[in-house]
Amino acid sequence: MSPRKSDSRERMIVSTAALLREYGAGGTSIDRVLEHSGAPRGSVYHHFPGGRAQLLDEAVALAGDFIAGLLDAAMQDGDDPVQAIDGFFVLWRERLVSSGFRAGCPVVAVAVETNDDAPQLARSAASVFARWQEALAAPLVRHGLTEQRAGRLAAFIVAAIEGAVIMCRVEQSSAPLDAAAAEIHDLLIHALRPSPH
Amino acid sequence: MSPRKSDSRERMIVSTAALLREYGAGGTSIDRVLEHSGAPRGSVYHHFPGGRAQLLDEAVALAGDFIAGLLDAAMQDGDDPVQAIDGFFVLWRERLVSSGFRAGCPVVAVAVETNDDAPQLARSAASVFARWQEALAAPLVRHGLTEQRAGRLAAFIVAAIEGAVIMCRVEQSSAPLDAAAAEIHDLLIHALRPSPH
Repeated sequence: MSPRKSDSRERMIVSTAALLREYGAGGTSIDRVLEHSGAPRGSVYHHFPGGRAQLLDEAVALAGDFIAGLLDAAMQDGDDPVQAIDGFFVLWRERLVSSGFRAGCPVVAVAVETNDDAPQLARSAASVFARWQEALAAPLVRHGLTEQRAGRLAAFIVAAIEGAVIMCRVEQSSAPLDAAAAEIHDLLIHALRPSPH
Repeated sequence: MSPRKSDSRERMIVSTAALLREYGAGGTSIDRVLEHSGAPRGSVYHHFPGGRAQLLDEAVALAGDFIAGLLDAAMQDGDDPVQAIDGFFVLWRERLVSSGFRAGCPVVAVAVETNDDAPQLARSAASVFARWQEALAAPLVRHGLTEQRAGRLAAFIVAAIEGAVIMCRVEQSSAPLDAAAAEIHDLLIHALRPSPH
């Protein structure tokens, strides 16, 4: 594969993720991806024989991996899970604010539509959420929580962030995410505190 | 307006909300609404001079009011906010399970897309979320929380439910919503417990 071809493949996936974040799956057509990425039309089925569904799928996986990488790094740094989870909220807040509250989560964009013709999209979204939950749960277990409680908290944190990001976009304010961050922070401090007995 | 015309107007709004829940905004075209509702094509611009955006807007308002009504009723019943909020989670769980995890929240479906041509959609979604937050916060204030904490918890609960519903759909399981319900339940019991000092 020539470097140029590989570039246009990568650019199309990055453009798809950017469009998903801002315009949702409904607003992410192949035409719009070509316009956004500047890739030649002929490259679509060359690079993505599965068409638009494959493009969405790869964008979800790329964005999911990118965020999982940031989360893993934060979770390993300093070994303070509360601080790391605070930082995960800060990351989402920055993504919202820097886009003027226009851009949300590309995984959610795909997850809110039932795609009977492309069931792999829901599976890809589920596997991103699972990956994030594992990254959140592992340090909570290392700090003494049971696997069950850590898993429950990890699912809850991902849910609270994803829901809050959606609310922030339509309210044009970070208040819902700040509310979730503050409540989760206090909850984690409480959950990780050594039992008094 | 003849009863038949009024019927087709109502049917189109209900169909729009049903399609939004399952297929997202991208999958809710006027053609699909006509097919789902059985309404005649000529009725679209007669009943909805603002076209598709007006139809989405009215569907968001209708669904938002419907859920707010259930929430108000639960919050007034028996005056136990923890039980009422548990019941709000049960309501969302039933909606997911009865649809085979195919249908989510129609308000979220609209909120995940930036609609530069129809900014009223984001405002309508924001006003539904605000309405639900008020319904959740009021009884928490009556039970002794400050306005600020009650508001923070209310935003957090709406965020956790909306995010968890999205995760449940792609996981084909109620586990994320059950995790959020359990954590919120314990958190509310703790928040509403009289201070020991």
